[in-house]
Amino acid sequence: MIYLDNAATTKPNENALRLAEEYLYEKFYNPSAMYLEGYALQGELKKARSALLSFVASETDFELVFTSCGTEADNHAIFSCAKRGNAVTTSGEHSAVHACFVELKNRGVIDARFAPLNKDGSVNEEKLLELVDAKTSFVSVIHVNNETGAVNDINRLAKLVKAKNPRAIFHSDGVQAFGKIPFRLAKEVDLYSISAHKIGGLKGVGAIIKRKSLALSPLLYGGGQESGKRSGTENVFGIMQFAFAAKEKFAGIKEDFARLKVYERILTDGLDKDVYTILSGESSSPYVTSISAVGLRGEILLHMANDKGLIIGTGSACSSNAKNRYSRVILACGVDEKTADGVLRVSFCERTTEEEVREAVSILNELGRELKSRMH
Amino acid sequence: MIYLDNAATTKPNENALRLAEEYLYEKFYNPSAMYLEGYALQGELKKARSALLSFVASETDFELVFTSCGTEADNHAIFSCAKRGNAVTTSGEHSAVHACFVELKNRGVIDARFAPLNKDGSVNEEKLLELVDAKTSFVSVIHVNNETGAVNDINRLAKLVKAKNPRAIFHSDGVQAFGKIPFRLAKEVDLYSISAHKIGGLKGVGAIIKRKSLALSPLLYGGGQESGKRSGTENVFGIMQFAFAAKEKFAGIKEDFARLKVYERILTDGLDKDVYTILSGESSSPYVTSISAVGLRGEILLHMANDKGLIIGTGSACSSNAKNRYSRVILACGVDEKTADGVLRVSFCERTTEEEVREAVSILNELGRELKSRMH
Repeated sequence: MIYLDNAATTKPNENALRLAEEYLYEKFYNPSAMYLEGYALQGELKKARSALLSFVASETDFELVFTSCGTEADNHAIFSCAKRGNAVTTSGEHSAVHACFVELKNRGVIDARFAPLNKDGSVNEEKLLELVDAKTSFVSVIHVNNETGAVNDINRLAKLVKAKNPRAIFHSDGVQAFGKIPFRLAKEVDLYSISAHKIGGLKGVGAIIKRKSLALSPLLYGGGQESGKRSGTENVFGIMQFAFAAKEKFAGIKEDFARLKVYERILTDGLDKDVYTILSGESSSPYVTSISAVGLRGEILLHMANDKGLIIGTGSACSSNAKNRYSRVILACGVDEKTADGVLRVSFCERTTEEEVREAVSILNELGRELKSRMH
Repeated sequence: MIYLDNAATTKPNENALRLAEEYLYEKFYNPSAMYLEGYALQGELKKARSALLSFVASETDFELVFTSCGTEADNHAIFSCAKRGNAVTTSGEHSAVHACFVELKNRGVIDARFAPLNKDGSVNEEKLLELVDAKTSFVSVIHVNNETGAVNDINRLAKLVKAKNPRAIFHSDGVQAFGKIPFRLAKEVDLYSISAHKIGGLKGVGAIIKRKSLALSPLLYGGGQESGKRSGTENVFGIMQFAFAAKEKFAGIKEDFARLKVYERILTDGLDKDVYTILSGESSSPYVTSISAVGLRGEILLHMANDKGLIIGTGSACSSNAKNRYSRVILACGVDEKTADGVLRVSFCERTTEEEVREAVSILNELGRELKSRMH
């Protein structure tokens, strides 16, 4: 089995699972409890919080609030901060951002503005900045596009947005960037969403990184956990496992990035151009590559590959319940429906091997040619 | 070590952990994925959902939506449904309900009404019903009080509320009841919140049980998981472990209840009445017993007991971050500050043994007498 759908979710890091096991079997206490065994967990959560934050941001300027997932982090940022005037985002956002903008627009809370994309899925920066004005309360730009791997220069964009409107709050969904793209947050980025299960952590754990001086109203009210910003008993096991997994991931982040860039090239060079068009750009994240078997159905190829032991995706797993046949984001890249219908997403993790990539190329070429010959 | 703070959190069920382990190491896929390995998980989640629901409600009338915790379930119910007129709750709610009512009141969305409690922590039913009128959009009554163990007859209350105002939506926080109190939901209860980690499940998993015909707007928007009602990648491992743990818990629910009733009596009979007053009533849940060392500080006794290897709580762990010295709920039971200051909560789980209870009584009596003699 070759698993190349790591943008949907990754296999949990087993070392990190073993290290975190004690939080299931021994240190199972409630961190809000007043006895030593409970209270001590607050200290351990604090260390995990600090470690996770330190990988991408200054602890002087930023703080980290644990959430139950990237979706909650995005929702928290948006519903807390996009409250008036207009809010600007891109046409390349994950549903967790896109759906919130649509909801706030439908409620009449904000004028929701969507900036167009470049061909590779990155945002058209000029058009984005044109949408920002004196009435803009909130801007959200995905860091790494989850369908094409396009990298937006969020630090630069945050600075440009603030130059136009210093009061606009800048958020970025960093779920596909955190632990994958070597990067540190500029102080102009106010809010940054991350998720554990995209880098060897578990489903059910995420976080929002926020500029300390930014007031963030809660999305969940209750016992006052997370300094009152996110109530609900802390998912101690999940949080600790996330910290252990992230530590390993960040230790090799540059080496993994460079190696996967080579593998991405093996993939894009190796695919038969009579069948496949590469949608991802040259400067995309090596973790996510979008291709299209133009004229064929991606979904059928996905199932055929599945039968051969190769697991890949089509667009975002998170939007597979949607009624639309075509990916909203892929269409926003300006491709036609025939191209959008043939889309496949190949996504690596740090454990992906060159051999697996070569085997995947071989399977995809064989199946693509076979399906194409059947269609004609 | 004797752990009697199970109302704060329970030790995860180890059989359930072992059974769920495959969802960490093998079946780690994203349930929204279209390939067999991912899609198959949808079927497993469906079975877990159905099993959990069937323990307390008719699958014909109700459905279950997974959330990240009991707090999220409460917040989801309240923010989705308490949108106009007035909303009625009790003075004995967990912070996850209480804080939402306060927030909606502060926002000017609703007139929030709090019904007084009886001495044992149960709601004064007559006063509650007096607060319900034609403009009541929402009523929330905790099923089992998390500080005193008082059981509210929510089925009866839901019927009486609907008789006064059929359009009022009735919610109950069932976090301390689910898997502990033999019980089935009447169809007049619209929404019911549950949590995994109070019955051998993991922190980070909860659910909201809802009447099928009730429209519930999402709290989290995004990829459309949970039939659009709760977006965010499903916490598969946590959900499956919850289902396994609940299956065991419900299999012995009546026997556990009866046995723990005996242990509760051993506790309340055994405590030295020169030191301790029992706050919980005769008909309280045997899982939670509130006592007070009147004139002493509960917090000091908690730490002394901790030194002796006995872990107990003071009021709700979830409100231990609050600034108030006294429990809001205990004061609402009508006790004076001296009594509120001495409050301790002893909470059992199904693994609690008679020997542990007798040892706890002995430790509490010894420490209470010692502290009392030091104070005089």
